Formats: sequence, C-alpha cells, structure tokens
Amino acid sequence: MAVLSYLTTTQFDFGAVRLLPKELERLGMRRPLVATDKGVRAAGLLDVVLGTLNDGAGLPVFDDTPPNPTEAAALAAFELYKSAGCDGVIGLGGGSAMDLGKAVALLAGSGGPLERFDPLLGGARHIANVAPIVAIPTTSGTGSEVSVGFVVVMADGRKLTFASPKMIPRVAICDPELTLGLPPALTAATGMDAVTHCIEAILSPVVNPPAEGIGYDGLRRAWRYIEAAVRDGADREARWHMMMASTEGAMAFIKGLGAVHAMSHAAGRLPELKLHHGTLNAVILPTILRFNEGTAPEKYERLAEAMGLSKAADLADAVIARNRALGLPGGLAAMGITEGMIADLVPHAVADLSTRTNPRPADAAAYADLFAAAL
Amino acid sequence: MAVLSYLTTTQFDFGAVRLLPKELERLGMRRPLVATDKGVRAAGLLDVVLGTLNDGAGLPVFDDTPPNPTEAAALAAFELYKSAGCDGVIGLGGGSAMDLGKAVALLAGSGGPLERFDPLLGGARHIANVAPIVAIPTTSGTGSEVSVGFVVVMADGRKLTFASPKMIPRVAICDPELTLGLPPALTAATGMDAVTHCIEAILSPVVNPPAEGIGYDGLRRAWRYIEAAVRDGADREARWHMMMASTEGAMAFIKGLGAVHAMSHAAGRLPELKLHHGTLNAVILPTILRFNEGTAPEKYERLAEAMGLSKAADLADAVIARNRALGLPGGLAAMGITEGMIADLVPHAVADLSTRTNPRPADAAAYADLFAAAL
Repeated sequence: MAVLSYLTTTQFDFGAVRLLPKELERLGMRRPLVATDKGVRAAGLLDVVLGTLNDGAGLPVFDDTPPNPTEAAALAAFELYKSAGCDGVIGLGGGSAMDLGKAVALLAGSGGPLERFDPLLGGARHIANVAPIVAIPTTSGTGSEVSVGFVVVMADGRKLTFASPKMIPRVAICDPELTLGLPPALTAATGMDAVTHCIEAILSPVVNPPAEGIGYDGLRRAWRYIEAAVRDGADREARWHMMMASTEGAMAFIKGLGAVHAMSHAAGRLPELKLHHGTLNAVILPTILRFNEGTAPEKYERLAEAMGLSKAADLADAVIARNRALGLPGGLAAMGITEGMIADLVPHAVADLSTRTNPRPADAAAYADLFAAAL
Repeated sequence: MAVLSYLTTTQFDFGAVRLLPKELERLGMRRPLVATDKGVRAAGLLDVVLGTLNDGAGLPVFDDTPPNPTEAAALAAFELYKSAGCDGVIGLGGGSAMDLGKAVALLAGSGGPLERFDPLLGGARHIANVAPIVAIPTTSGTGSEVSVGFVVVMADGRKLTFASPKMIPRVAICDPELTLGLPPALTAATGMDAVTHCIEAILSPVVNPPAEGIGYDGLRRAWRYIEAAVRDGADREARWHMMMASTEGAMAFIKGLGAVHAMSHAAGRLPELKLHHGTLNAVILPTILRFNEGTAPEKYERLAEAMGLSKAADLADAVIARNRALGLPGGLAAMGITEGMIADLVPHAVADLSTRTNPRPADAAAYADLFAAAL
C-alpha cells in the first residue's frame, strides 16, 4: 500500500477500498452520506464499497448526481444528509459524484447558499467549516479526491468552480480495482482529463515547483499508459498508473488550470448536449497548446520530454494523434457544438477561474477565435 | 511570493523573512525560543530575523548548537525554553540548528528523554505533541524546514534519526536572501546535500510518485545551478533555485534515504574530525551510485535526464567530476578517514534508519567494502 501523506492522506493500491472502515474510524465518521450516481451503482461499485462496512447496507445513499453536479442536486443531497443525521460524506464516483459530495460537506459545515462562497467574489473566505470527506474515485480522472475545488452548475446556469484548501478531502481511497470495468470511451476521456490537468497546471505561471514536479510525473505516467488502459481495461498495471496520474494531476493543479478548462467548463454547461468534461478537454487541448506556444519554451521542452517526444516536437500534433488513436472526437463540431453557439460560450470562458492562470491572457475576442479553431 | 501548501506551509522568496511576524501570529506563537548557532549570529542573520519582530531583541536565543546537534545541547536549549516560558520554537540556521529546534519542540510537547522516541524501536508512536515550529533555513541545504526528521548524537554516541509526521514544521520561511553570504565551500557542501537527498529519495523503493516527481524537479534545479551559486554567491537566481532544490529534496525524502546517508551519518559522528554532512554525502555518493546500479534502470535514466546527461551516462562519473569542479574532496581519506576507522563506522551504518530504504540491501560486509571504496 502506498500512503501519500500530503494535505489528503491517500491510500493508494489495489485493495485500498478495504481500508475504508479504518479510515472512517480514524476520522470519527459514524454516519456518512454516500454521494454517488446511478452509473456507479449499476457498475456494482456501490455494493463493493458498502460491502466493506458492517453497517454498509444501512447508510444513506444519494445516487441522483447528474453528469455535471447542479445546485439543485447538491441541495437535495444535503436534505438527505440532514434528515439521516449524517456527520460526513463519502464521495464515490467520478468528478461529479465527488464534487457533489464536496458541495454537501460545505453546506453541512458552513450553511448555504452556495453562492456565498463564489470564489470569483472572494467567497472562499466565508467558508467556516467543512464536514469531513472521504473521496473514492472510480475514474482516472478528475483527481477531485485530492483537490481544493469542485464545480457546480448553479441555478442561474453559471458553472462555478469553488476552491479552498478547506475543501481538500481528508482521506482519499484510490483503488484501481474500481476502474477495471471502466469502458474504453470513458477511460480515454477521463485519462485525457488527467493529461490536461498535468499540462495546464505545469503551464500555469503560479510558482510552485513541487506541484510542477508532481505534474511532470503524472503526465509521463498518463501519456505512457493511457492507450494500454483503453485497449485492455483489465490491464492492472495500466489502470494503476492512470489512477496515479489522475491523483497527481490534481495535486499539480493547486497551481491553477488554464484556457482549456475555461472553455470546457463553458461548453460543459450546455444541458442538451451533456458533453463530457474529459472529452472536451482532450479536444480543446491542441488549440490551447498552440495558443500558449512561446510563453514558456523551457516548459514545452520538459513537457515533450515527459511525453517521450523529441525536445522540439509539436505538442499539439502529438495530442491530436493521440486523441485519434483513442477514438476521441476530432473537434468540437463533431461533439455537436456549432459556430452559432460560440457567442454564448465566450463570456463563460472569460469569467472562468481557470482563465486567470493561463500563461497567455485570453479575452472575449481570443476565446471567440479559440472556440472557432477548436470546432 | 510562492506559497507551497503542503504539510508545511512554506513562504518562499526573497524577502520572505518579513512574513515572520504574521506567521508567528497565525500560529499563536507569542514567545518562541530561537534555536540557532554562533555562525548564524556572526553572519548577522540572527539580527536580520529578530529585526522583523517588534520584541525581537527580547526573545530567548540558544546559539550553542554544535555542528551536529547533541542530546546535551538539546537538553540545555530545553532548559532555556522552560525558564523563558516559551510556547514554540524558531529554528534558524542550517540542519543542525533546525534539528536542535525540532528536538526542543519534541521535548516541550511530549517530555523526555529523547531515547523514548527512537524510531529504530518504533518510538515515534510515543510522540504525543510537538510544540509549534517555524523553520528558517540559512543553507541550501538539509531541507529540515519541511522534513519529518531530525538527527541527534545521543549521550552514548549513537547518531539517531528521529522521524514522525508530527515533527514537520508548521511553517517554513525560505528566504534565499539569507544565503547570499554563504561561503563557496559551504554552498558546495550543502548544495550536494540537496542533490543527494533528491537522488536517494528517488532511488528508495518506497512507492510515492508525487514525492519522486518533486525529487526529479529538485535534482534538475540543484544540478543546474550549484556551480553558479558556488562561483558567485551573489547570484540571486542561483541562490533561489538552490534553496528550492533543498526544500524539494526534503519533500522527496519522505520516501526515505539510502546507503549514502547511512554512511555519512556514521562518519559524521567522529567528534575529532567534525566532518560536514553535505561534504560526506557528496564524497560518498559516487560509490553508492555504482553499488545501486542495476536495481532501477529506468530511474537511472530519469536521473540522467534530470541532470542533463545522456540516458546511458555514468552518474557516478558525473558526480565525481562535479565534486572536483566544486572543490570538494576526492574521497573520505582526504577528509581524514583512515582504513583503521572503518570497522567502527560499519555497525553504525548498518543500524542507520536510511539503510532500510537503500534499493540494494547492504550488510556489514558490504559497508566495509563501501567505506573502503569511498576512501
């Protein structure tokens, strides 16, 4: 068992899920709300996790998390939390379930409404307490199990990224066994999410060399093993490395993210399209790699090195080729986004927290061009 | 200002020392004991630090830290801590002063004697509390400002490494300004200490990819800037990178260290020779790089990459050449160690905590050969 002792205590290895009872006890968590979604339940993973606990069958479970967590879903889950007398949250699933769990933990510890904590308005300082969180990822992934943030689509349609060190889960249980059944398309999409996290975190101009070092390691790992994990989901070694890369990506993005995430958050809001965050990141990444070129030549060389490419390699081309090999869409148009939609997406990208740490400033005009280029 | 939020909150940049009052306030530390040494005082750095505080001149200062902290010195400092009514420790200096400060904080929080906490006997579990510690390094360095451990030469002559997550300083103030006056010889020795930390941490078989990622970044930094820092102590860029590499080295060695440290701890005990920990590490490192060859070929390639060498480069040769360029001794014999001394050193190396995480097992016979080879 690898124990990664950072602000989150992460238990990492095949079989880690068996440590859940001990970790709950260590945190003094007697009655957790399990925040998850129907996909996780259908995959049998909820049963696996509850099966490790003596009283697992009796725990309150909220499995209505939508593909992108909404304020309404968070409030509904919070109602269940309160009525069931919970004292903490287990977030079990992909980024959505874990993020919904974080939202509930925040509401439980500090009270609502969520918009009080809007980071674009300095709202993080209003966070008083946060109920304890144990995060158990089932994708590789958003890395939400170790990250400071969570994303919620508010009632007014805005997609807000909440961020505070207080939101970091106390415990993460990273058990690659839970991802063996993740289908190829999701493995590809969430794997490229991890790749994008590492790259955008590294390119962020925020100074944090340890976080960058973690990011380069994560990128190396994800770039090397993502095709194997997609080709053969039962490849345990590949699954282990993809989950580690995912966790490392989130540890790295304490530095902030960039324009890729600003754009994918904007496009991810479109309710009728239900676009996957990871797929959006993968598809948009080449455009932003070109946009950012020249801002940090030395970082680009180290990125190429981590990706096993020659120093002068074209990173955008490498990502395009990899997306194709993984069966991911070739552009946003293939995902259903049209030129006509761009004007509505642009302001959301401009307003996104991640825009602030893109190495090259991007305003509305730039985003309009970038969305067009990414079609 | 770079803020590195890990288990230690590290304020890192030129001028960071001005944040000391704020950090003390944040920790609720009203009357710290300043643990330092006469060299730091003579360099004017104690005045710089005390000068940032309103009541700096009135703080109790223990400046009798020997080059390697002893149990006697720790007890004497603890007496001052108690009589002055202190509520925390500021460790200001190189590894010795910071380690002595840690020892005092442990005694203050958990009571003595120190041997209760001997990690070779599982003593870390007896650590109840530790008084808060603010660590301010003046060398680059041991990285003790962010590490779990500290080393003390006990009354019976044994050099013990105490280690526990509870020993991690809450706050580190990493101000490269404080190292501008560090003489070339010490810059070289402490810089190679940081290099050795990164390398041994990476080679440790303990699984912790984030720590490894941090180690590779630290190694890259230290290898690249150490000659510049030695050649021109006023080179601010070089000093910044060497201090970052030092902090990163200690963040990496949460994975444990290896045979180099086992041997340098053993040789560092010899009271009449007063050998510098960093110099010993630099001189012994090539021998252990050869000894460990073949245990982790992929890591050796990544080490070479981080050091800007070709993949198949001989790492030991590169370190030998670098030591020569830095004016460091060519072997242990040049430092005063003779073949006749080896038999006494061997059992200490075998018993050292760091031996357990060397990638290749080393017993008494091996260490006898290794000391001889390193002469």
